[in-house]
Amino acid sequence: MAVKSKKIFLDEKDIPRQWYNIQADLPEPLDPPYNVQAGRPATAEDFSAIFPPEIIKQELSAERFIDIPDEVIDAYKIWRPSPLVRATNLEKFLDTPAKIYFKNEGVSPSGSHKSNSAIAQAYYNKKAGVKRLATETGAGQWGSALSMACQMFGLECVVYMVKVSYEQKPYRKSLMQVYGAQVFASPSNQTEVGRKVLAENPNSEGSLGIAISEAIEDVVTHKDAKYSLGSVLNHVAMHQTVIGLEAKKQLEIAGDYPDIVIACLGGGSNFSGTAFPFLYDKLSGKVKNLKAIAVEPSACPKLSKGVLAYDYGDSSGFTPALKMYTLGHTFMPGGIHAGGLRYHGASPLVSALVKHNLVDPVTVRQKEVFEAAVTFARTEGILPAPESAHAIRVAITEALKAKEEGKSKTILFNLSGHGHFDLSAYDNYLSGKMQDYDYPSELVCESLKHLPKTK
Amino acid sequence: MAVKSKKIFLDEKDIPRQWYNIQADLPEPLDPPYNVQAGRPATAEDFSAIFPPEIIKQELSAERFIDIPDEVIDAYKIWRPSPLVRATNLEKFLDTPAKIYFKNEGVSPSGSHKSNSAIAQAYYNKKAGVKRLATETGAGQWGSALSMACQMFGLECVVYMVKVSYEQKPYRKSLMQVYGAQVFASPSNQTEVGRKVLAENPNSEGSLGIAISEAIEDVVTHKDAKYSLGSVLNHVAMHQTVIGLEAKKQLEIAGDYPDIVIACLGGGSNFSGTAFPFLYDKLSGKVKNLKAIAVEPSACPKLSKGVLAYDYGDSSGFTPALKMYTLGHTFMPGGIHAGGLRYHGASPLVSALVKHNLVDPVTVRQKEVFEAAVTFARTEGILPAPESAHAIRVAITEALKAKEEGKSKTILFNLSGHGHFDLSAYDNYLSGKMQDYDYPSELVCESLKHLPKTK
Repeated sequence: MAVKSKKIFLDEKDIPRQWYNIQADLPEPLDPPYNVQAGRPATAEDFSAIFPPEIIKQELSAERFIDIPDEVIDAYKIWRPSPLVRATNLEKFLDTPAKIYFKNEGVSPSGSHKSNSAIAQAYYNKKAGVKRLATETGAGQWGSALSMACQMFGLECVVYMVKVSYEQKPYRKSLMQVYGAQVFASPSNQTEVGRKVLAENPNSEGSLGIAISEAIEDVVTHKDAKYSLGSVLNHVAMHQTVIGLEAKKQLEIAGDYPDIVIACLGGGSNFSGTAFPFLYDKLSGKVKNLKAIAVEPSACPKLSKGVLAYDYGDSSGFTPALKMYTLGHTFMPGGIHAGGLRYHGASPLVSALVKHNLVDPVTVRQKEVFEAAVTFARTEGILPAPESAHAIRVAITEALKAKEEGKSKTILFNLSGHGHFDLSAYDNYLSGKMQDYDYPSELVCESLKHLPKTK
Repeated sequence: MAVKSKKIFLDEKDIPRQWYNIQADLPEPLDPPYNVQAGRPATAEDFSAIFPPEIIKQELSAERFIDIPDEVIDAYKIWRPSPLVRATNLEKFLDTPAKIYFKNEGVSPSGSHKSNSAIAQAYYNKKAGVKRLATETGAGQWGSALSMACQMFGLECVVYMVKVSYEQKPYRKSLMQVYGAQVFASPSNQTEVGRKVLAENPNSEGSLGIAISEAIEDVVTHKDAKYSLGSVLNHVAMHQTVIGLEAKKQLEIAGDYPDIVIACLGGGSNFSGTAFPFLYDKLSGKVKNLKAIAVEPSACPKLSKGVLAYDYGDSSGFTPALKMYTLGHTFMPGGIHAGGLRYHGASPLVSALVKHNLVDPVTVRQKEVFEAAVTFARTEGILPAPESAHAIRVAITEALKAKEEGKSKTILFNLSGHGHFDLSAYDNYLSGKMQDYDYPSELVCESLKHLPKTK
């Protein structure tokens, strides 16, 4: 069949009206979050200091479809529905019989899929009378998305940005400031936690753990303030399902259905959003042979090499513990450029699906990822984020496998973001200085000793 | 009428099949380019050393519509048709009865409208057996666009990038390298011209004039090499008309027609591409009251304050002279962040239209431009390039005027590019350190003494 159209657009009226909540269809219910301090499962009350009621309800809900409020859909209209693109030039370059489609989430104003949940979270907080949202950010994609979302709904936004990123990625900080957010290099002198760290070590480069503690202290010490998280949790994964729900409609227009769905995995929100709507077809028996691949970096392979256990969401142990594949919350991955994938654990939902063999984890190494990224930029024109390039790497591998086998597979991957703020990483690759990082088994063994105790 | 859709997309089959050549409809024919050295009007032969035949033909053609080759349309499909967006959030923020639409050319892979001509030029050069294209770039939008276009058509691309930009905007350079281009900081040791400058001053920061000379020497000293220019010339302006042609179709779908069309003007390609298809309606008597506004920075107001005269296209006087509004080719504008607008002259086509009062020039100052840029980012989400923000500034001013007058005007502007590589400029604005630049009348008077002599 001839390619009719390279890009498949939907109308704004085709923006999904409901998110898909895969909790309704899991082979067995999730283990609940655990309050380690209290020695019991966490309750809705445990979350009420940091999240508004509607978010907590979604986090714990087993309802299959949850309505998207009109105000959220209106905000989505700035960039949604995002295009589904047939990677015709890449296919030609690879000389593969496979059909490669990608969903382009890089068209969002903040540059990545993160806006899908940021908009929803800002809306629910606004509705609950919250005036101020605090969060932490590492590489800055989440911070940018939340800054923009808060601006749209008239909320103050405070971002604690890990100091080493604040200094190395000053433009991500600038983008958040353009969107009206206050951005503090963490450790900051805004909080007790920050001041204490600075007193001990004025040159501290910070960590995501410290930044989370600062954000949570900010919430507790300010009136009408709440906290916002960009991945891992169930409600965040659910908000992202607009990606896969749109992609399904677009593939239907193309007269296609994927054999393989691919997305990279950091905390899990991008993978969830892309794959869950297709996994729904598998869980409900509608399709049989769907392969869902979660791509992780060799430097941080929690799904492939971690253990399924209760662990903290942050490196300092402030959050409730979640049942997830983890490398241990004290594990520090090597300095790969895909900062969004340097997280020790995987979303409890994705973890449960991996346990039941419904999701296949695959690890890839940094240099082969950037090789794929450059090939993609040179054929399809778009510069991918290093995170998204992990998915491109596996899409290319699968397309070449199809060529070898002489089979016409249909491959879908999510281009979760653009790489306009990541060109120093490309420089590092093109100059031949890029390192690969192997699985650091010794470090993992050490960090797994620090898993929290549950009863 | 209720807003039906925020964004208006066209199908790929609606990509224009012909460019519009306004040379067919000018009130009087253009004065020809002038070969100053030979003391006579320039001929097609004068251009044949640096341009392929099809480009020269287009440059001198008076045919109204020129077919777009299928191969160019196929490459356009990577991002075209670009969306037309109703700036509903900005309208609400301004509380204006005006309807504000913008065409978003920032969705191109290189980040700006420049790709529209880069693709066409790479195609015609490839077709003519050219193996290598050389060009110069200042801020880097044109260099990025040509690098990507050359990659698509299998041409070598060599970019001489003004050294001060090469050092201050390293990521634009990196993007060109990802697209496979060779990028040299100019003055370079690749050419006689460059070596001579370096011998005299090893710390030279370079200039666009030097970079053009290096690119032209590169062409002359390499086999099967040609030169490529990103603005000013007639064929470049014509390639850009896909912008306005698409916008007309999209406004028709919205049931609208602009009272005011606005675009920023550096060399003139962006303004031409946006406005010419609408000016066609005016020139053919189809509409009467269309206002076409070319926005220039107060630091470089060639249309508002320059003279209409023959002048060189480059600061060193290597090119044929063109009849255009100019501030003098030796004029050095103040260091505004909108690097793409720091050019001494305006395209001969736009200049002719200004002479006949068919285009209204407006000048704006840097700080009010960035104020508009931030307002736009905070309402519509998209971070604009500083160049494009000049158009936003005037669109906002016109919308507020409509509010004052209680009139419902329809305003269209072109968002020529995104600002992801311009965040240091935003930093400069947000930190309160930004300067305004006034019209430097003394410098202009001085530079106007150096206009070339014609018979």
